[in-house]
Amino acid sequence: MVGRTGRDVVTSRLPGLVQDWKLDLVVVNGENAAGGFGITEAIYNEIRTAGADAVTLGNHAFDQREALVFIERADALVRPINYPPGTPGRGAAMIETRGGARVLVANVMGRAFMDPLDDPFAAIDRALDGVDLGRVVDAIVVDFHAETTSEKQAFGHYCDGRVSLVVGTHTHVPTADHRILPGGTAYLTDAGMCGSYDGVIGMDKDEPLRRFTRKIGAGRFEPAAGPASLCGFAVETDPATGLAVKAAPVRLGGDLSEARPAFWEA
Amino acid sequence: MVGRTGRDVVTSRLPGLVQDWKLDLVVVNGENAAGGFGITEAIYNEIRTAGADAVTLGNHAFDQREALVFIERADALVRPINYPPGTPGRGAAMIETRGGARVLVANVMGRAFMDPLDDPFAAIDRALDGVDLGRVVDAIVVDFHAETTSEKQAFGHYCDGRVSLVVGTHTHVPTADHRILPGGTAYLTDAGMCGSYDGVIGMDKDEPLRRFTRKIGAGRFEPAAGPASLCGFAVETDPATGLAVKAAPVRLGGDLSEARPAFWEA
Amino acid sequence: MVGRTGRDVVTSRLPGLVQDWKLDLVVVNGENAAGGFGITEAIYNEIRTAGADAVTLGNHAFDQREALVFIERADALVRPINYPPGTPGRGAAMIETRGGARVLVANVMGRAFMDPLDDPFAAIDRALDGVDLGRVVDAIVVDFHAETTSEKQAFGHYCDGRVSLVVGTHTHVPTADHRILPGGTAYLTDAGMCGSYDGVIGMDKDEPLRRFTRKIGAGRFEPAAGPASLCGFAVETDPATGLAVKAAPVRLGGDLSEARPAFWEA
Amino acid sequence: MVGRTGRDVVTSRLPGLVQDWKLDLVVVNGENAAGGFGITEAIYNEIRTAGADAVTLGNHAFDQREALVFIERADALVRPINYPPGTPGRGAAMIETRGGARVLVANVMGRAFMDPLDDPFAAIDRALDGVDLGRVVDAIVVDFHAETTSEKQAFGHYCDGRVSLVVGTHTHVPTADHRILPGGTAYLTDAGMCGSYDGVIGMDKDEPLRRFTRKIGAGRFEPAAGPASLCGFAVETDPATGLAVKAAPVRLGGDLSEARPAFWEA
Ligand SMILES: [Fe+2]
Ligand SMILES: [Fe+2]
Ligand SMILES: [Fe+2]
Ligand SMILES: [Fe+2]
Ligand SMILES: [Fe+2]
Ligand SMILES: [Fe+2]
Ligand SMILES: [Fe+2]
Ligand SMILES: [Fe+2]
Repeated sequence: MVGRTGRDVVTSRLPGLVQDWKLDLVVVNGENAAGGFGITEAIYNEIRTAGADAVTLGNHAFDQREALVFIERADALVRPINYPPGTPGRGAAMIETRGGARVLVANVMGRAFMDPLDDPFAAIDRALDGVDLGRVVDAIVVDFHAETTSEKQAFGHYCDGRVSLVVGTHTHVPTADHRILPGGTAYLTDAGMCGSYDGVIGMDKDEPLRRFTRKIGAGRFEPAAGPASLCGFAVETDPATGLAVKAAPVRLGGDLSEARPAFWEA
Repeated sequence: MVGRTGRDVVTSRLPGLVQDWKLDLVVVNGENAAGGFGITEAIYNEIRTAGADAVTLGNHAFDQREALVFIERADALVRPINYPPGTPGRGAAMIETRGGARVLVANVMGRAFMDPLDDPFAAIDRALDGVDLGRVVDAIVVDFHAETTSEKQAFGHYCDGRVSLVVGTHTHVPTADHRILPGGTAYLTDAGMCGSYDGVIGMDKDEPLRRFTRKIGAGRFEPAAGPASLCGFAVETDPATGLAVKAAPVRLGGDLSEARPAFWEA
Repeated sequence: MVGRTGRDVVTSRLPGLVQDWKLDLVVVNGENAAGGFGITEAIYNEIRTAGADAVTLGNHAFDQREALVFIERADALVRPINYPPGTPGRGAAMIETRGGARVLVANVMGRAFMDPLDDPFAAIDRALDGVDLGRVVDAIVVDFHAETTSEKQAFGHYCDGRVSLVVGTHTHVPTADHRILPGGTAYLTDAGMCGSYDGVIGMDKDEPLRRFTRKIGAGRFEPAAGPASLCGFAVETDPATGLAVKAAPVRLGGDLSEARPAFWEA
Repeated sequence: MVGRTGRDVVTSRLPGLVQDWKLDLVVVNGENAAGGFGITEAIYNEIRTAGADAVTLGNHAFDQREALVFIERADALVRPINYPPGTPGRGAAMIETRGGARVLVANVMGRAFMDPLDDPFAAIDRALDGVDLGRVVDAIVVDFHAETTSEKQAFGHYCDGRVSLVVGTHTHVPTADHRILPGGTAYLTDAGMCGSYDGVIGMDKDEPLRRFTRKIGAGRFEPAAGPASLCGFAVETDPATGLAVKAAPVRLGGDLSEARPAFWEA
């Protein structure tokens, strides 16, 4: 979600979706929640109150310096797992759902064209070690925050069969390649953003356009106004195995075409 | 389209689509047509025979060295317009459709996380100078070959109102953000790839996974086998203005969810 | 020069050098003069007063927003020539030396691992068009501001025989590869920085080390304190041809080994 | 050393230097020894015979596929330590000098603008754990193979006081910033290359220039011919502490200015 525009569409629509679709677990990426850059404790609480069971982050995790402090007491706030040892917070959190299921939510950051954190592939191996899907936990949700489609697809295949779903974030554009991989892991290259698409990755388009064309900025990035879309990935898992049985994109409101998971629509 | 897998799905399905949907103009990106790297004259002719009116390229344009030669006689083969002056071939081609309409097809390459060619924004300005949409030409199609969603969205807004459509390529993953921008230009961040999605951007997944995890390759990239998808962007323009009136994604076959333009389905 | 540390070493030592070495022309790179980021008019005047005949810039040219304005009246302030058309200021300036010679001073920015400006090779061709060395001008000084040694060496060879000297900047570390290229152009991959070398490229080392090891910053970059070095490139040209006849590095003070041009030492 | 040009200058001059300067230990970077790309077993043996006690590598370590095999039996061949666990070979080797001293030679790769290996800072910490300089070993030599001056300087400061010397490689251009850091570690941002400087980082200049100016290559990179330079870093350590007491650059032959360590010249 990007800025107030993004928060508003989430807080206004999420409670209804939780109810209508009987959602067991809602995970929201909040790295751009505060004016486009990072997250504050107040905003974290706002997102949780709206229905998010966990909030993941990314390269903007600590743009708001207070996140380095409050993340320690925010049990459901998950930052990229492959930050160096000693980084405040956690890279994976065990969440108990409304219905009593146990779900591991992990956030991992890619390295291609991004600040090089520790090896994301080795990091997910360590996180999953001893956490057998369908036995130790009922589901495993992985938010892979990365730039390139190649690293994302490779990461999806790497996790296939070991987690319930891998959903990419960071590009702020929803992809249309949702599917269940051969091993049973639901996959979507990017969930897209909650915010206004009449901008540049959720920010007002003037400043980005200025920088692309003139190579000299004139100010700060500000979230784009305008009608906002809520974007996400809907996955249903097999209670016995924790693997995915159904997967569909969610796109509601704003400038994008609407998409609803048929399997949850009454 | 990526390799033989991609060519096969295009050559087998495109003729039927041209007929069923009464397509006036078909543009195909062919930068990965030859084993994943570049294009040969034989393959170019094969794609044209299958129904493509123009073939665009990208950063892999000249991976097959023969393309530097045959592009001069291949009138409908379009390489990125912002290669340096003196580069063989053309960055925009005037195509006459079956129905006698005149369409400018341009290929432009982004610079973010890519080899820095000349300024893509200045290049499209020059290409459009004097080529007024709806007056000098009936439509203008721009294939913006770029890595980042931000540069692609910025480019879309930059062209809005001046061209019929801006469709991104290069990430090999179809995005779900098709829309008509406020000025009347149809926009899709990425059209996706024609080829197998059970791989990494169309290539067999073993070698990419090896490089991501071990950081040392063991061989060459080979196109992924397996059921192939055809992906694209369907746009209908207003004959009077050349601007878009309808836009929808196309996804047929393979591992992806099917998408067909409702407005062309009888 | 980086921050006050860098300005101090320049303003204190440059006047003596101008006198002792009978310097005809002094060019200083000032992109980091203001606290490490950009340049102000006051600082520009300070550098000029200290003896600089021209001040070049780089990727930090406009970090201080006022530079976009005062550069128009600062005739000897030169920003990268390959910014887009319409950028305030100039990419090359004709300077008249104390002795009445005419010297073209150009600033060009590389693109490898940098923000992609226009083609630097094409830009220098245009700048040199009609400006024949030894006929139209007495000397041509090119500050090539770039990251990689490969682009810098390629640029040096590209200009060889057409300019008096190509000196690299941007890495803030002096290289030891000064030489006169076969065509008569003096070349040095990087002139190094004026400032304290007990830091990280002239900035206090704490924050850079924190970012490299923890991947999360804790504050702003500040220029490093400590004894400062003045670094540069001394070139003597043939009055008849404008080509270089002697070239030597300059390193004075601070933590670096001293280097003085023997040919100017009485 | 780059290609045959580089090997020739090393094999012809190194034996004499070992004798004249009474060298206890010689470390050579060999990542470009085989035609510019990687190293073969025959070449490794050739370098060792010429007087190298250890051979370090870098991003081109395994360009010659045979290196993945013979590195296991080549005890003094050291590849970047921060390749993933399981990579063939070793990232640090204990070398016994002619005089019976024990020296740890480590090779570490930077991540800025390079393929992201594991954290180089954490990797050197692990390598030095329990290997106290002056007690467990007589000297520690670190070849930090990296692109940017900022990561190199940060790495030097990070190791300061714990190793005898940190010498950068990879840019193929010798820097002039040799010094002994406050903690007693000798430091040089880049040792430069052994090979011809009448090229682009040791390769014939035609192909690099073509790629920079036309953005399309026409062939392979080949080592530059022409008179070659031998470049390096001379460091003398205190036998009691293992820290550096003297440090000077070495540049012999070819197009560069000559530099010899005065403290070793009789
Ligand atoms: Fe984001
Ligand atoms: Fe992000
Ligand atoms: Fe492609
Ligand atoms: Fe591409
Ligand atoms: Fe600088
Ligand atoms: Fe710079
Ligand atoms: Fe190298
Ligand atoms: Fe290297």
